[in-house]
Amino acid sequence: MPIAALVTGASRGLGLELIRQLGRGERPPRYLFAACREPEGTGATELKNFAKCFSNVKIVKMDVDDLNSIQETAEQIQKVLKDNGLNLLINNAGINFGGDLNGITPEIMMKTYTTNVIAPVMVTKALLPSLMQAAQLSGEHGFSSEKAAVINMSSIMASMEMFNIQNGKAYSYSQQGQCPSLHAHRAALNMVTKCLASELKPHGILCASVHPGWVKTDMGGEKASLFKEESVEGILKVLARLSEQDNGLFLDWRGQRLPW
Amino acid sequence: MPIAALVTGASRGLGLELIRQLGRGERPPRYLFAACREPEGTGATELKNFAKCFSNVKIVKMDVDDLNSIQETAEQIQKVLKDNGLNLLINNAGINFGGDLNGITPEIMMKTYTTNVIAPVMVTKALLPSLMQAAQLSGEHGFSSEKAAVINMSSIMASMEMFNIQNGKAYSYSQQGQCPSLHAHRAALNMVTKCLASELKPHGILCASVHPGWVKTDMGGEKASLFKEESVEGILKVLARLSEQDNGLFLDWRGQRLPW
Repeated sequence: MPIAALVTGASRGLGLELIRQLGRGERPPRYLFAACREPEGTGATELKNFAKCFSNVKIVKMDVDDLNSIQETAEQIQKVLKDNGLNLLINNAGINFGGDLNGITPEIMMKTYTTNVIAPVMVTKALLPSLMQAAQLSGEHGFSSEKAAVINMSSIMASMEMFNIQNGKAYSYSQQGQCPSLHAHRAALNMVTKCLASELKPHGILCASVHPGWVKTDMGGEKASLFKEESVEGILKVLARLSEQDNGLFLDWRGQRLPW
Repeated sequence: MPIAALVTGASRGLGLELIRQLGRGERPPRYLFAACREPEGTGATELKNFAKCFSNVKIVKMDVDDLNSIQETAEQIQKVLKDNGLNLLINNAGINFGGDLNGITPEIMMKTYTTNVIAPVMVTKALLPSLMQAAQLSGEHGFSSEKAAVINMSSIMASMEMFNIQNGKAYSYSQQGQCPSLHAHRAALNMVTKCLASELKPHGILCASVHPGWVKTDMGGEKASLFKEESVEGILKVLARLSEQDNGLFLDWRGQRLPW
């Protein structure tokens, strides 16, 4: 397990489950930062209750849509870490809108892009000094999530190859409603992964996109096929096995490679 | 050739060349709308000079970043077309920014997404009634650019499959500088193509992404390998051959399929 990790969107859903399983794991990170927009709000009660029992879990306030908030939180994290770097950043915060071409507006497209694509870039950029420090401190050759890694929580709906033109539905989401054009940002996040994998490679930092499966969360709905516990167990196993050959790839929660 | 066509970003580069070759072709469109942001500006002089000689070319003012401007122009076009539909929409307007992770800002990412991704969606949406009318009037079965089609001018830099992590450069752009993270919007435009191909299919409207090659324009620079005349000749041949099997694909100016 990494010495220091940060998960965004950590107050609920997969983000909260990632904090839970990382926090109570056999070799938990010494520093586990759980970032959420409103740590004081009622939405963060479960996270706060969990953090009371695990002293390594530190809740930090971060509004990923707000560059100042990102930068302030990054500074706060760097102060806590002191000379330790950040080994693992999981860009998990994200939003979802339904609708078709008829309902789509520039505002919806902009908001989705801001939270789901621009934010992961800006959070990564703000934490880059800590990620680079972790990579340098590790002394390891190669790439791993224990050394330094950025994981973007993506979705199989980002895959253009798997998108079915006949019914307008992404492969394994066929029970869900259509969401055309609104998929655009999803492919963009995968391109961010690819670009970061290239740009961070010389620093020894790995980057990959992960599809968590179709999970029973507020976002995935009740009909989803996976419990969040199963999904996160799988994801953490995948992260533990990441190596240089996975840099810039799109993997699912079982470690299977997905096409772009 | 289609009876009515619209090209955005028509005052220069590939947009202007598309208008030239379409306008003076053997079977030119009866209505050829050349949309640009500032028809009265000096940047539109070449377009205006061309339009003086070809009565089928109609210059229309459209700021693709402004929904009101898009809607006003769409209404104006519909008035000119009366009961004729619009057969071919070429979403060509686009902007380009250089820079790496260090120089990237939310504002640059937002601006690029607005012009290169949101705009094609909004222009298509505004012109959908005319495109549907063209598809209905044609009486043809199947799909073609003479019947009804939306073409998004994309770039090989949008291809995640062809992106080279080793040097951070898209395959055939290896002479150009790095542009990481800023590639994100390019993949998003290809996803828009895929989504529109699905959503517009029941209406008989085809949608495809086209990579024009690396062209000597203001955007491509002097070192580019293709003259805009060659690129556009190729693109128009590709458009003339489009059929149902090309719906939702990413093709280059020679008609070769590119991977996502």
